[in-house]
Amino acid sequence: MISVVTGNEHKFCEIKAILSDIGEVFQVDLFCPEIQHADIGIISQEKARYAYSILKQPLITDDTGLFIPSLQGFPGPYAAFVHDTIGNSGILRLLEGASDANRSAWFETAIAYADESGVMVFRGRIDGTIAYEPRGDHGFGYDPIFEVDGMTLAEMESSQKNELSHRARGVMQFHDWFINREKDT
Amino acid sequence: MISVVTGNEHKFCEIKAILSDIGEVFQVDLFCPEIQHADIGIISQEKARYAYSILKQPLITDDTGLFIPSLQGFPGPYAAFVHDTIGNSGILRLLEGASDANRSAWFETAIAYADESGVMVFRGRIDGTIAYEPRGDHGFGYDPIFEVDGMTLAEMESSQKNELSHRARGVMQFHDWFINREKDT
Repeated sequence: MISVVTGNEHKFCEIKAILSDIGEVFQVDLFCPEIQHADIGIISQEKARYAYSILKQPLITDDTGLFIPSLQGFPGPYAAFVHDTIGNSGILRLLEGASDANRSAWFETAIAYADESGVMVFRGRIDGTIAYEPRGDHGFGYDPIFEVDGMTLAEMESSQKNELSHRARGVMQFHDWFINREKDT
Repeated sequence: MISVVTGNEHKFCEIKAILSDIGEVFQVDLFCPEIQHADIGIISQEKARYAYSILKQPLITDDTGLFIPSLQGFPGPYAAFVHDTIGNSGILRLLEGASDANRSAWFETAIAYADESGVMVFRGRIDGTIAYEPRGDHGFGYDPIFEVDGMTLAEMESSQKNELSHRARGVMQFHDWFINREKDT
């Protein structure tokens, strides 16, 4: 049994879909203090450590950043706050007039897994570009403006997104490590 | 003797100028982890607690946010990161076409003072508007685009800015509390 510590149901569903074959997966909405000015790997790791000290059962935390090189890495680890404030329209406005080359971006997720033996971190990344306007109705957050091979993440069915998304890649890494560890023990 | 924990020399000079009559003031550039999604008062307080655990001498920390209501409070407590990435031009771009009414903004600083008896927090705020373009050569950070009564903070001499700035107001509150406490003991 693994708890996924998140208040975001979309994230939970993405993660649960990938972990369905390794046992029961629950959502736990526990507030974890996050440190600032840190790498997403460190943020996720600290959240997992904190959550484990309270829940004392195997759990996963997630921290995701969106990095736009032509904006010096903005919004970076503050992707969630920036989305809640200036939103997709704010990002598009900051890139108004930017050429294709200046619209490149990547998402990166750090999945941390904590149990009685400590904390492990798994990372996933997806490279793409910021679209010229929002497209698609699926997903959440920046999905409508993040484009990979001509399609935004919000234009993809969840099965397709789950094959290539940053979060899916991080969760898959955890999944494979977990399965192998279970075999070994 | 009071240490001001900051890597920002401009901040140090602003603070030092106001505290010149209460004793020696030093700059200490110590990295303090900051918690995310928190009020600037909590961030500053936690930094002071952390710094005191290491330095074990009276010290001041500062945390400042810029809040723009028409951008849902962006950039908020992430003002420094946002300035380092999208900068003043990014803020102006996000407000392109915004009327005077939608350009209102405020700065708020939380000054935390830590000594052997604990941590105290003092706050200062200044209300203004985001200018249509950067003006002035003084100050730092958002000063060229933050306007008060027709002048940007960067158009003011430091003595004038020190009479009204958010940081100056927070430091003055600390100053008066400190002076009174010294009298009482």
